[in-house]
Amino acid sequence: MDQRPIGVFDSGLGGLTALRELRRILPGEELIYFGDTGRVPYGSRGRDTILRYARQDVAFLRSFDLKAVVIACGTVSANALAELTAENDLPIFGVVGPAAQAAVAATRNGRVGLVGTAASIRSGAYETEMAKLDGGVRIFAQACPLFVPLVENGRFRPGDVVVETVVREYLASLKEAEVDTLVLGCTHYPLLYEVIARFMGPEVTLIDTGATCAARAARALEEKGLLTDREVGGCRYFVSDSTEDFARLAGIFLGGSVAGSVERVEIERY
Amino acid sequence: MDQRPIGVFDSGLGGLTALRELRRILPGEELIYFGDTGRVPYGSRGRDTILRYARQDVAFLRSFDLKAVVIACGTVSANALAELTAENDLPIFGVVGPAAQAAVAATRNGRVGLVGTAASIRSGAYETEMAKLDGGVRIFAQACPLFVPLVENGRFRPGDVVVETVVREYLASLKEAEVDTLVLGCTHYPLLYEVIARFMGPEVTLIDTGATCAARAARALEEKGLLTDREVGGCRYFVSDSTEDFARLAGIFLGGSVAGSVERVEIERY
Repeated sequence: MDQRPIGVFDSGLGGLTALRELRRILPGEELIYFGDTGRVPYGSRGRDTILRYARQDVAFLRSFDLKAVVIACGTVSANALAELTAENDLPIFGVVGPAAQAAVAATRNGRVGLVGTAASIRSGAYETEMAKLDGGVRIFAQACPLFVPLVENGRFRPGDVVVETVVREYLASLKEAEVDTLVLGCTHYPLLYEVIARFMGPEVTLIDTGATCAARAARALEEKGLLTDREVGGCRYFVSDSTEDFARLAGIFLGGSVAGSVERVEIERY
Repeated sequence: MDQRPIGVFDSGLGGLTALRELRRILPGEELIYFGDTGRVPYGSRGRDTILRYARQDVAFLRSFDLKAVVIACGTVSANALAELTAENDLPIFGVVGPAAQAAVAATRNGRVGLVGTAASIRSGAYETEMAKLDGGVRIFAQACPLFVPLVENGRFRPGDVVVETVVREYLASLKEAEVDTLVLGCTHYPLLYEVIARFMGPEVTLIDTGATCAARAARALEEKGLLTDREVGGCRYFVSDSTEDFARLAGIFLGGSVAGSVERVEIERY
């Protein structure tokens, strides 16, 4: 049993889709969320910059006495998990491994699509993980650099011609490739679930990386005896830009208002 | 006469549209460009964050012995010019004043449109400047948060249904308001010139803030006797993210390849 909090971070708001799932399956846990809203997005930046930012994010979270860290960000998971794991003496969970497992388990025809930020796709991390699990799976990857700005501007609903056009453009080649499983390799993308599901069709299984990562982290903590026995936990939110802007937008990702305090952090100091 | 370089900065690549104009009208000057590509975009962030980043940008540029600084960024000009001017003992030129002057001079019906980032529009800086010049001018302002991500993803050409739809949505109210002048209040927007000009129609004058700012800075330096007598100058480029990514994209903004070196800066240290 371990009553210490779990740290969760993302480049901005996307990780709240994973946080929401963590709160649902582990309602007793104390969660500390950091969103690097002063430096979002990560997905269009170079690997060195992503690694530097991710190290600062973890250093800030570790100013609390944590039992584990969840990287609720596809870009950081794909580019910096190995370094962060090697440099920190506590369990760190990324989204790539659980999503790769879920995709390999779900595919029937061995053709898996992958969408993510430019940096996630460039990393090749999902391909590496899936190849370890099943060398016969073919992966069709597509970077979707406009998905994050669209979602962060509240443009993700069916019927929005801009969103529908961008989704069609990015996903056309994956549909043509007849993938039967599609990994949404960025924690912003669950908001586009409905538009993507309609375009891909009912026969394609969508993998929500934030949710699969949350489930995996919960299972691992349970196996290690690290869960709390509290019945009701809470969440503290920290951001590197305006707390008001975060509180206003966070409801979209959480499917409800921010239940907890929001505080500002000078992340460059970590 | 003053042989020292001029510093120019922007949140990312947009300021290159102003740099290009400076190089055209002042070919003998040495220019030092900083693009904060590790933290772009600024326009969706809170004012405190914009001010903190802008102070670091100027501090870095001033590690060189400069004769002037050009803020080739609408968001910084609208949110931080007063502070930067008060804190620095050299001429600092922003884009808001020159654009306001150009708009007031250009309008015939006294109805001026303004497009910019969320932070620029929220600041009210253009309204304040135009009111000083002519209290009778009416301003119709519209934040366009998707323009920067679209341009940075190379989506600005006529015929692109995504770009055309977003332009139509953002500008419809300004067209209805029958503005005869439109200030492009962000240095990224000149790349959308053709799409915007077609939508607004030939009777609407577009004001390119980067170009008007460059012209004003050149005139002011000439009046103060601060221009160089060199015939051919040069440009050094500094960025806070990958130098390769910058070099690849900069050509779009400069209308040619980056003629000069590109170096990486750890901007958080300034």
